[in-house]
Amino acid sequence: MDLGIEFKAGVPLRRQLEHALRGAIRSGRLASGSVLPSSRDLAEELGVSRGVVVDSYAQLATEGYLAARRGSGTRVAELSQPGGPPARRQIPPPETFRYDLRPGQADYHAFPRDRWKAALLRAMRELPDRRLGYASHRGVPELRNALAGYLARARGVVVEPGHVVVCCAASQGLTALWHVLRGRGARRVAVEDPGWRWQRFTAEHAGLEAVPIRVDADGLVVEELAEAGVDAVVLTPAHQYPTGVVMTPERRGALIAWARQRQALIIEDDYDVEYRFDRDPVASLQGLAPDLVAFVGTTSKTLAPALRLAWIVPPSHLIDDVEHEFLVTGVTPPTIDQIALASFIEDAALERHLRSMRRRYRAKRDVLIGALARQLPEVRVSGTAAGLHLFARLPDGVEERATALRARRSGVGLHELHRHCTTVAPSPQALLLGYALATESELIAATRLLAGAVYPS
Amino acid sequence: MDLGIEFKAGVPLRRQLEHALRGAIRSGRLASGSVLPSSRDLAEELGVSRGVVVDSYAQLATEGYLAARRGSGTRVAELSQPGGPPARRQIPPPETFRYDLRPGQADYHAFPRDRWKAALLRAMRELPDRRLGYASHRGVPELRNALAGYLARARGVVVEPGHVVVCCAASQGLTALWHVLRGRGARRVAVEDPGWRWQRFTAEHAGLEAVPIRVDADGLVVEELAEAGVDAVVLTPAHQYPTGVVMTPERRGALIAWARQRQALIIEDDYDVEYRFDRDPVASLQGLAPDLVAFVGTTSKTLAPALRLAWIVPPSHLIDDVEHEFLVTGVTPPTIDQIALASFIEDAALERHLRSMRRRYRAKRDVLIGALARQLPEVRVSGTAAGLHLFARLPDGVEERATALRARRSGVGLHELHRHCTTVAPSPQALLLGYALATESELIAATRLLAGAVYPS
Repeated sequence: MDLGIEFKAGVPLRRQLEHALRGAIRSGRLASGSVLPSSRDLAEELGVSRGVVVDSYAQLATEGYLAARRGSGTRVAELSQPGGPPARRQIPPPETFRYDLRPGQADYHAFPRDRWKAALLRAMRELPDRRLGYASHRGVPELRNALAGYLARARGVVVEPGHVVVCCAASQGLTALWHVLRGRGARRVAVEDPGWRWQRFTAEHAGLEAVPIRVDADGLVVEELAEAGVDAVVLTPAHQYPTGVVMTPERRGALIAWARQRQALIIEDDYDVEYRFDRDPVASLQGLAPDLVAFVGTTSKTLAPALRLAWIVPPSHLIDDVEHEFLVTGVTPPTIDQIALASFIEDAALERHLRSMRRRYRAKRDVLIGALARQLPEVRVSGTAAGLHLFARLPDGVEERATALRARRSGVGLHELHRHCTTVAPSPQALLLGYALATESELIAATRLLAGAVYPS
Repeated sequence: MDLGIEFKAGVPLRRQLEHALRGAIRSGRLASGSVLPSSRDLAEELGVSRGVVVDSYAQLATEGYLAARRGSGTRVAELSQPGGPPARRQIPPPETFRYDLRPGQADYHAFPRDRWKAALLRAMRELPDRRLGYASHRGVPELRNALAGYLARARGVVVEPGHVVVCCAASQGLTALWHVLRGRGARRVAVEDPGWRWQRFTAEHAGLEAVPIRVDADGLVVEELAEAGVDAVVLTPAHQYPTGVVMTPERRGALIAWARQRQALIIEDDYDVEYRFDRDPVASLQGLAPDLVAFVGTTSKTLAPALRLAWIVPPSHLIDDVEHEFLVTGVTPPTIDQIALASFIEDAALERHLRSMRRRYRAKRDVLIGALARQLPEVRVSGTAAGLHLFARLPDGVEERATALRARRSGVGLHELHRHCTTVAPSPQALLLGYALATESELIAATRLLAGAVYPS
């Protein structure tokens, strides 16, 4: 019997023989039902002790690869369906661009590595052994305390630590909230159009119908909500994604009045509101109506998506249901990372980082606006002085998809508006130009390429 | 107007005034519709410049707390429903025991802190800036490569890196698989009885009916599966939780034959199989039928639950659907932690740790068995020499619930069997005694208290 086995030093012979036998059975080289050589014969053939073969046969019989029957020797079991390993799929390399102006990215070169490392090391050092076990599915107390303080201070959120639930991503928070609503009978919910696509993806994934609601220059069009017959709405009131619009106070009032009258839930996605350059950010909607609003926040824009640290603050009547969601799926961030973020916030390192990043992003934004004014004066930039990308309306007659395609081909990563629209053919043709990750000179060079894409020669 | 404000140094006056105004409006001290003092009057009253008050009023108007109308001054907006913050809920402290013999825990005192810290630091140091952005929802390539090698080597899993999906917890992996099955029309799935409760919780959470299937001395009773009319089954074949039974080769064969005939999915939960003390662990069921079995593994028993690092290997026909689940909910472990685990595996630190823990756990198991033999000779320990707890059958006439209650009252944390049963009143009265976390002398002392709980004076 040729098993094609070449024994290596350092690994027990028995384990090597078992591995070879499993492989031969799986590949069909040892067919179902075929009789194996006696342990004595195989031991001689391989030059190993008989005990090695006996043990290997016994192990594979236990595992179901072999069937040993008194008197008829050892056979390959009937059950295994021979076949090679599954077809090898190539994992496509992620899209990369010479100039990466895709929206939604932060400046990863400015990530506070040393401070974050110090916070991680301190958490590792100070964590008592027993806390390496299962932690609360709501998040560790240190982080819930720190977040409650930070959110009250920086975002005007009405919250106590017991109402903060830590999660890995805003999309996980949304998913949990949608499941809770679904469980309470909701069927239709509203999402922004244009909007962050995960608003819709997560709602549909939870079995809900996602109704797109238009966004205009005042924010989400609340009158259309009333007609949509929905039980909840998710939106980005303080800085709409991707248009950059800030919802007017009148709309905020109308939204809350709608939710109160209909007993609907407002989900406030507070994704990048820390980056407002001209004045203090608008305080959270949640602070106006804590009983109607679930607040969702993340470190993906302020620090880095790689950290996978986010949070939600549900209204108190939903907290038990939300906690149950997290209990069942078991998905909280690692304890050490949570404690690191807690001390990062308590030591004011987060707010220090945000102050420095606001200066950095404002400068980059100014550079990009200046470059556009020089290279593409017909492009109109709208939205408030905030966030991580520009909303750039193209000149009349210039089509966004073709432009974006040409820009990408020339090495500039960016998004066309339609990627973020649910309904087909939005009226303005626009591009989303992220300025956070590229350097200032890259922003200037990219704008030159973009001009060539807008007006191809 | 008394805002009860005491200005502090170091925080802008304007921000302090805004905070005080929001608080007064929320608490109802400033009622809806009431008129605020003019900016000049309030500035004088507070001893601040008028600009501070003007800016604060403007900010709160933007946020929807105030409504400014030409000629009628600034009023508190109508929308806010006054009310204090939500009732303060006490977070109950987690259960702690003088002697913690609850099953499912690892020896956290033996966690390889230095090696793990070194792996984290190396990951932090070597991670390029751009990888602080969004990583693949399937997990980072380094970890998928490392896991594919480890699982093939240690668990006989047939796998290539592209088929490993990294997640935060086994329960998350189960949840994703259940959602995929539900999406493909499954309605009923089978879980073990007794079994790990999250098998059932996650299935029901995904909208599936969980049908409990009996476990006997040969493992899951496969004949009862056929009658249950289910589309999938989740089980712990290599070391059943909590009975400690190893599924016989005949049952393994029958299970695979059933799944092949019915085109059902087998979910193999490989939670603590690395800890087999008398021989090599039984190789995975997945290796026998990679097209029928989804393999689920975790670091919660081998390293620590606090790490929140787990993985699944779905059969290839489900991989796209499973990946979609992870894409939508956005829940992968942090990039740095994933890369740390990858190097931990590649440097053989995991296998070294497992070897050392096997010695440690075997010794503890022997101590507990010895102590039981001396103190409670009527208690029968069953299950293979493996895992992290003993399955201890109580003497005839001794009731497990009352015994467990008495034991807990005397300071010994443990589980009674019924906690892990779906059907009521299991025939054997048994306790689950974890020996991983307690020290050897604690195990001896706990057994003495347990004897008092079994035979109360």
